[in-house]
Parts: sequence; structure tokens; C-alpha cells
Amino acid sequence: MAIQYPNGKSYPNGIQNNKIKKDKQSMTFGNRGMTLEEDINASNEAYNLRGVAVIHKKPTPVQIVQVDYPSRSAAVIKEAYFKQASTTDYNGIYRGYYIDFEAKETQSKTSFPLKNFHEHQINHLRNCVTHKGICFVIIRFTAFNQVFLLPASALFQFWDAQQNGGKKSISYQDIQKNALEISYGFSPRLPYLDAVDKLILQIEESSN
Amino acid sequence: MAIQYPNGKSYPNGIQNNKIKKDKQSMTFGNRGMTLEEDINASNEAYNLRGVAVIHKKPTPVQIVQVDYPSRSAAVIKEAYFKQASTTDYNGIYRGYYIDFEAKETQSKTSFPLKNFHEHQINHLRNCVTHKGICFVIIRFTAFNQVFLLPASALFQFWDAQQNGGKKSISYQDIQKNALEISYGFSPRLPYLDAVDKLILQIEESSN
Repeated sequence: MAIQYPNGKSYPNGIQNNKIKKDKQSMTFGNRGMTLEEDINASNEAYNLRGVAVIHKKPTPVQIVQVDYPSRSAAVIKEAYFKQASTTDYNGIYRGYYIDFEAKETQSKTSFPLKNFHEHQINHLRNCVTHKGICFVIIRFTAFNQVFLLPASALFQFWDAQQNGGKKSISYQDIQKNALEISYGFSPRLPYLDAVDKLILQIEESSN
Repeated sequence: MAIQYPNGKSYPNGIQNNKIKKDKQSMTFGNRGMTLEEDINASNEAYNLRGVAVIHKKPTPVQIVQVDYPSRSAAVIKEAYFKQASTTDYNGIYRGYYIDFEAKETQSKTSFPLKNFHEHQINHLRNCVTHKGICFVIIRFTAFNQVFLLPASALFQFWDAQQNGGKKSISYQDIQKNALEISYGFSPRLPYLDAVDKLILQIEESSN
């Protein structure tokens, strides 16, 4: 279970409050994508416990440089660096379908910046779609506490338009038009598989 | 790309040779599951490049305790610990199917010890099978350089027998009887999806 701190948020990967330098950069890391990630992790746990789906967040990729073995018991990593993820953060299985997605928050009230993605993540999603995976992005507009599920197919259109000199972000209106809104619930906190059901229905209807 | 060392093996997660203490414990860690993991990673890359499948190894789970920010550039993890994985090492998508597996090597010439698995990994595989995932274990007998793909259904039988006071390992003969042998190739080095094709065929035939 994640340790809760006075502001109601826990630090990622169990980083301890008192060991993090309180400079601007560490706070940036501490807050990055936190709340949405917690909501999704809690929802995945609820889905898993009820036998609805098996979806997990992948561990944060870390480049390990130095490991000490002070005793027989435990290895201590003394030097390591955060690595850029080569895939997306979440994957798993639901209703026999391979599920793959990324989750992102934005402070913006007007648009979602496409720089939130790396090209290899987009390519990864494209490959998964080719193999008939159900792929999407969960986007949270923090200012409105609104969460949307944007199908990968729509994301690719905005991404490709940007590559061809188009807009560097997806406007809030375009998100509303192309995404499914996810309303917060009690358990699961963020019932995003309801929106996935609609994606699956569309796919099954278009293949008939 | 993994850095190659004189013995032809690279260290996991890019641990540098000269920074690892050369005591017995670090060697144990350095050699654990190395070659099989490299073979599978290279095979997954080959499969991915050819558009055959999208299967990746999950990052090693690490509990981060202390992070320093010496400059604007990069965060340095100064204290972290290896965590027990809550799922399996590999998952992805192939032919529209969710794929989930673990890979293990054994030095034994007579049997494969079941203590290589944790109960939550078995439970994870069971849940994935329930949701119609294709689940298995890749086992390498290092002494014979023989690699087998054991379907999860067979693994569960041996696991459950052990829980009821049965054998603590799967004999080499039982592996030969219940698993599909994977012969080494050029590229992919370990063409394990050939064996997965046979599993899929069995599943599709039994559902008709």
C-alpha cells in the first residue's frame, strides 16, 4: 500500500518525503502524473480483485550503475538513473483483448500538448493496434478534474498532423469531440473499462 | 544495445563490470537468468522489427528511496532496492492474443525446481488464463542448452500437486512430456512463437 502524506498524495515508488531535497526539481518529479496514476492503479487493483481484468502499470525503467552488497541479505543500488520508457506505462488483458495505454495529466485549460509523447511510444501504440490490441490514452485536465479516454486512432491523426506542420497540441474541444469522458466513481475510482467496452463494441461492429 | 563483456554476457540493466564488487553474491546476481533473457530479448526485437509480435520484458521493479538532483540535467538515484515482481517478466500481443510468460534457467540436469516461482506469479498467470491469455513458462536446462515452452495449464498441475504435498520440482522427463522444445535459430535466436502457434491451435480447436 502506498504511504499517504499530509497532502493526500504518495510519492512515486515509495520515495520517502524526508529524503527528497525540497528543491523545485524534486517537487516537479514528485507531482508528475501522480494523482491520475494513483487513480488508475487503484482502479486496476479493483478490477483485478473482482476478476474483471488483469492490467498493471509497468515498473519505472531504471538504468542501474552501481550495486553494493553490504550483507548477505539485500543488495543496495547506490547509483542509478531514470531511463526513458520504450513502451507505454500500462498493459494487460480484458475480455480476451490485449489492452495498452498511456496516462497523462495536463495543467492546461485549453489543450493537451503532444510533446507529452515520444515518437517511439506512438510507434509502439501503432504496432499494438496493427496486432488488434485495444490502445488509447487516458488524459486528465487537472484544472477541471476531467478525465478522457482518447482512442489511439484519434491520437495518431493529431500526431501525424503535427508531423506535417500542424498544431503541437490537441485542443480541449477536439478532446471533447474525439474522446470518451470517464466519470469518477467509488470503486473502481476511475471506471475506464466502461469506455473500453464502447471501443470494443465499435471494433466488433466494424469487423462484422 | 547491451554492452558485451569478454565472457560474451552483458550485465543486467547495464550494471558496469568494474563497479560490481567481485564477491560471491554479486556473481550470483550477475549470472542469474542472463543468457536466456538475452536470447528472448533479441528474439522479441526481431519479432517486433518484422511486425510479427509486440512483446517486451518489463523493467526490473526497483524501490527508490533517495534521489539527488546534482544539476539541472539528470536525477541520480542514490539509494534503491530490488523489489519482488508482482507479475511475470514478459507480456505483449501476438496474432490478436494477449501473451504472458516467465523465463527461467536451471543448472539442474534432472529437474526444474518449483521454488523458481512465487505464488503471486502463479496467481497472475491463472488470472490471465481466465481472461483468455496465452500463458506459459520458458525453461532452459543450461547443462543441455535445451529450451522448453511449458504451457501454464501444465505448470498449474505441478504447482497444485506440490501444494498438496507432492514433488517440489518438475522432473526433466515430465518437462519433456508436457512442454514443447524450442530449437535455437539464427533470427529470431529463440523462435518461441512457433511453439505458441501450437498452443493457439490447441485452444482454437478445443473451442470449436
